[in-house]
Amino acid sequence: MALVVQKYGGSSVATPELIRKVAARVVARHRAGDQMVVVISAMGDTTDDLVTLAGRVSPKPVDREMDMLLASGERISMALLAMAIQDLGPRAVSMTGAQSGIITDAVHRNARVVALRPERVLAELGRGTIVVVAGFQGVTADGEETTLGRGGSNLTAVALAHALNADVCEMNTDVDGIFTADPRLVPEARQLAFVSPDEMLELASSGARVLQSRSVEFARNYGVVICVRSSFNQNPGTLIKETADMEKVVVRGIAHDVSDAKVTVRHVADRPGIAARLFGALAERNVNVDIILQNTSEAGAVDVSFTVKEGDLGKALETCQAIRQEIGATEVLADSEVAKVAVVGIGMRSHPGVAATAFAALADAGVNIEMISTSEIKIACVVRRADVERAVRALHQAFHLDQAT
Amino acid sequence: MALVVQKYGGSSVATPELIRKVAARVVARHRAGDQMVVVISAMGDTTDDLVTLAGRVSPKPVDREMDMLLASGERISMALLAMAIQDLGPRAVSMTGAQSGIITDAVHRNARVVALRPERVLAELGRGTIVVVAGFQGVTADGEETTLGRGGSNLTAVALAHALNADVCEMNTDVDGIFTADPRLVPEARQLAFVSPDEMLELASSGARVLQSRSVEFARNYGVVICVRSSFNQNPGTLIKETADMEKVVVRGIAHDVSDAKVTVRHVADRPGIAARLFGALAERNVNVDIILQNTSEAGAVDVSFTVKEGDLGKALETCQAIRQEIGATEVLADSEVAKVAVVGIGMRSHPGVAATAFAALADAGVNIEMISTSEIKIACVVRRADVERAVRALHQAFHLDQAT
Repeated sequence: MALVVQKYGGSSVATPELIRKVAARVVARHRAGDQMVVVISAMGDTTDDLVTLAGRVSPKPVDREMDMLLASGERISMALLAMAIQDLGPRAVSMTGAQSGIITDAVHRNARVVALRPERVLAELGRGTIVVVAGFQGVTADGEETTLGRGGSNLTAVALAHALNADVCEMNTDVDGIFTADPRLVPEARQLAFVSPDEMLELASSGARVLQSRSVEFARNYGVVICVRSSFNQNPGTLIKETADMEKVVVRGIAHDVSDAKVTVRHVADRPGIAARLFGALAERNVNVDIILQNTSEAGAVDVSFTVKEGDLGKALETCQAIRQEIGATEVLADSEVAKVAVVGIGMRSHPGVAATAFAALADAGVNIEMISTSEIKIACVVRRADVERAVRALHQAFHLDQAT
Repeated sequence: MALVVQKYGGSSVATPELIRKVAARVVARHRAGDQMVVVISAMGDTTDDLVTLAGRVSPKPVDREMDMLLASGERISMALLAMAIQDLGPRAVSMTGAQSGIITDAVHRNARVVALRPERVLAELGRGTIVVVAGFQGVTADGEETTLGRGGSNLTAVALAHALNADVCEMNTDVDGIFTADPRLVPEARQLAFVSPDEMLELASSGARVLQSRSVEFARNYGVVICVRSSFNQNPGTLIKETADMEKVVVRGIAHDVSDAKVTVRHVADRPGIAARLFGALAERNVNVDIILQNTSEAGAVDVSFTVKEGDLGKALETCQAIRQEIGATEVLADSEVAKVAVVGIGMRSHPGVAATAFAALADAGVNIEMISTSEIKIACVVRRADVERAVRALHQAFHLDQAT
């Protein structure tokens, strides 16, 4: 008998029919002897619909009331799932974030979990009940409702799995697991049985959209084993955990991201404090900068390039223009036609030469590298967006990722 | 400065545009110096839509989960109204049933209010905040969410008005107030400035659909003054309260109801215990019986007629048929073509002859009376449904209700 926390996203519970399918899946597992906690997102586009509704009432709704509004989405789906489970026989009970003991700080719309008090969940599990928990929401110590921000339901699942000392936290999604590369780009990509948490973090930050970094980080820090698997079949999925001989594999997978844009600030004055001024101004506007590159352009001046999410490009350009004269720059250029490819693997730590292999593979494929960023377990390159498919395939082949290890 | 509890029903907040209108109305009153608590129902058909959704997930959803589901409707509207108010300037905060201190028993879907602890509401009012409260919902002492059943939002408003010692509890609705008769039937019907709580209860139980008996009863028992008025204009509405010279008016108004049906059980054995058996069986099936009439039919047998809501007719007939032989009856007849008209006024207590005037008026109008039921302040008659309009007009005229007193 295992204690299993399962999480189902909005697309898995978008209709009453899909909710009944999830119920059948949960009940089958319960009947096989596992204790089940199910964390659930709002149905389909409910959250987006509620945001739209708020926009029609107020151009700038207050965060506290947005949380009150948004938290209702998961309450609807959790009650429906509990009903559907009961209809199949087993005892089930739905619980809000508050009832399941997800205690957060008071930062509405982006609250941080500060304590976990899952006494009611444990009591119900002890009675053989299937517990359905509303994802994405918590409550402050004062009883104010909060939401956890992007990827909040995943965070609820991982946090509960930790607090309940669950055997596994299953993320049920619309893909079969984590692959060596995106199968839509690389048909020969293989599903991975295991990924280390550090690798998963690098893959996620490099464009693999299956899991947000936040929940993976929480899972890594508290030793929660995540399993990414499909809502629609019984395939085993991919376990995110450290295994003994993991470092034998040099490269685990290739990620790519076509949501980045590049900004170049030309002929910036080459004196101390200029970079701090530029990136300080961007941080103030909440623009997240990813890769930064600085080239000497001429005597006393440098060109500074950096990448941001395409959605932040407007804000980034505004910010640069506003301080252009102050930092002595001549012009600010934008380039939306870039992409990022990344080679990720904890084996890199002990295997030199990975960067050289990667660069050679890209060169052989005729892909020009515009920027490079590395960590201990990742090599990321910015390339032309038109080259991204060729780049991912070349790297996948260069590291023999189509061959089982 | 008054403390005002206002309640808005689902049709008053059916769209974002209507919510903004309610917000403007609340804010105007707040700016005029009143402390405002606003109790709100779910938007338009939200509750019905949620019930339909539940039906698609489970044929017989558990009551506890239905409460979890249904309570989300008011949470959406309350958050939206709070946003819309804030957008106009004033401080506003939305509160769930639990946060506003509506403590109930654990009878899900039809919970009874057992305690009121509006400390948070009072604290916010003290800070000059407009408090928006989700109607229809409460919480048990154990933290389980409940709903209050039919007319629940009205009950929330009256209960809060009592607990906060409010000056008035305004029911904002789609009519201007309480009239001497339904203006759609009687064009010369006048709006009443005052109705006594007892009269309102009789009018409500005789078909006036503006307010449910439950909230009027609560208001009467705790001395809460209700004002029924329109959401869409500034007319003063009708106050439900006892005034000094109220008994001078003999008849306050005429109510009618076309949702009743009549059942006749023929040739029932005329011996002790038979009526108890028949109406006991109906009560067991939760069939609410209104007027009962017993006629002698022949030696040793009687005919028993009674009225029920048309929606309960099927259940009533089933029940009668099931015990027909046991009670010695020969047949069970159903009649859906009946209606009820009622003359209501606390002045009747001290003015004899009202019944005679009513019966004469109906006779003059050619309306046949099939059944009669009286209380100290009401005379109700069952007539043919085709006669109802003529009956209401004749009674309205006979008691000079078109003339101001």
